[in-house]
Amino acid sequence: KSGEMARLTQFVDNEVFRAFATYATIVVLKMMLMSVTTSYYRLTRKAFDNPEDTPSFGKGENAKKFVRTHPDVDRVRRCHLNDLENIVPFFGIGLLYALSGPELSSALLHFRIFTACRIVHTFAYLIPLPQPSRGLSWAIGYVVTFSMAYNIMKSVLYL
Amino acid sequence: KSGEMARLTQFVDNEVFRAFATYATIVVLKMMLMSVTTSYYRLTRKAFDNPEDTPSFGKGENAKKFVRTHPDVDRVRRCHLNDLENIVPFFGIGLLYALSGPELSSALLHFRIFTACRIVHTFAYLIPLPQPSRGLSWAIGYVVTFSMAYNIMKSVLYL
Amino acid sequence: KSGEMARLTQFVDNEVFRAFATYATIVVLKMMLMSVTTSYYRLTRKAFDNPEDTPSFGKGENAKKFVRTHPDVDRVRRCHLNDLENIVPFFGIGLLYALSGPELSSALLHFRIFTACRIVHTFAYLIPLPQPSRGLSWAIGYVVTFSMAYNIMKSVLYL
Repeated sequence: KSGEMARLTQFVDNEVFRAFATYATIVVLKMMLMSVTTSYYRLTRKAFDNPEDTPSFGKGENAKKFVRTHPDVDRVRRCHLNDLENIVPFFGIGLLYALSGPELSSALLHFRIFTACRIVHTFAYLIPLPQPSRGLSWAIGYVVTFSMAYNIMKSVLYL
Repeated sequence: KSGEMARLTQFVDNEVFRAFATYATIVVLKMMLMSVTTSYYRLTRKAFDNPEDTPSFGKGENAKKFVRTHPDVDRVRRCHLNDLENIVPFFGIGLLYALSGPELSSALLHFRIFTACRIVHTFAYLIPLPQPSRGLSWAIGYVVTFSMAYNIMKSVLYL
Repeated sequence: KSGEMARLTQFVDNEVFRAFATYATIVVLKMMLMSVTTSYYRLTRKAFDNPEDTPSFGKGENAKKFVRTHPDVDRVRRCHLNDLENIVPFFGIGLLYALSGPELSSALLHFRIFTACRIVHTFAYLIPLPQPSRGLSWAIGYVVTFSMAYNIMKSVLYL
């Protein structure tokens, strides 16, 4: 039994895995914060998707008028979806990359740049900052993920 | 060659990994069931997104009127998207947590509460049940994922 | 330190893991290509979601008219979302399946069919091809993922 544990905690002893786990957790938590940001905008803008979410603002007929869209809610929803489209691939590709035995310094560079880009991207989307700040932060993170994918293919290709 | 196999099947011998694999598979399958639920609502409500999906109900001009929205379809789509926003982070964070060597009892508690919450959440969304049933089941699952993220950071932090 | 590395590079020596890493990287990159496809359609159809994305086509009042929807953009967006709903579960379930010690030949069969299906699905969605080409390619990939989930449960079930 203690043997089993020893075998899986190999991960905790590996620096590349620890670095991946740290940065991956940061960007996934950042993505999850979009949920509460959406709730905040829905409550302050009084714009909901579901009739059952509105009763605190009024009863019956009156409540239904809060089932509506609002530009601020739509914006944070688009930012959340963009996170799903980019952070989820980073997680998957990054995990395979971490398991394919890269150099620690190279792995850290990939993880740090991606994490920084997605934080800048979120502020650029929500404030919003003028372009190309959002476009650039998206593009650099995208290239980082492709770079990790290229390294995976170099290490493990098996068709 | 048999040595390689022995090395990877370490996972099958580890109870925390087996528990994660079991509950993660359950919630991912639950999420995937939203696809067929959507198809069911699209067919029974005759509400499609694509013109090429409608021909069985009519030809030419007539078919296009089924390219439309329906509140029931929209509801199941929102439920599916909410699953993506919550179950996918659970999968990623849960995997890193399982690999970071937690206590079996503590890991089981996290996995079971999250799984129960997402099943309740689905029924609360689709029936729909009055609030706060959906809000609470979402919030508890969310806190469970944050708790696993906190445990990862305690075990592996490497910036 | 070299001991740690040796331990994680077990993955690079395992054929099932290498096959998973290869096909999973292919389908995730395919999913990511939907982002640039969307950008391409947005630029050529001049249909944007955000006012700050439009300035190159006009200034002030004039720019706002490009904050609009376009059927081609909507179609590629639906295709991207369908990828998220199907490729992300494949990644998660496939990873657990690869770690649960399947036969190499059986694993390759699952990974290859799924990958082929999602490539067909993308062309069927974007061209678009008449049904049931898109429906079938979706359904076969869906069944492949369920089959891997069934195999995980057979190997590791721990409730």
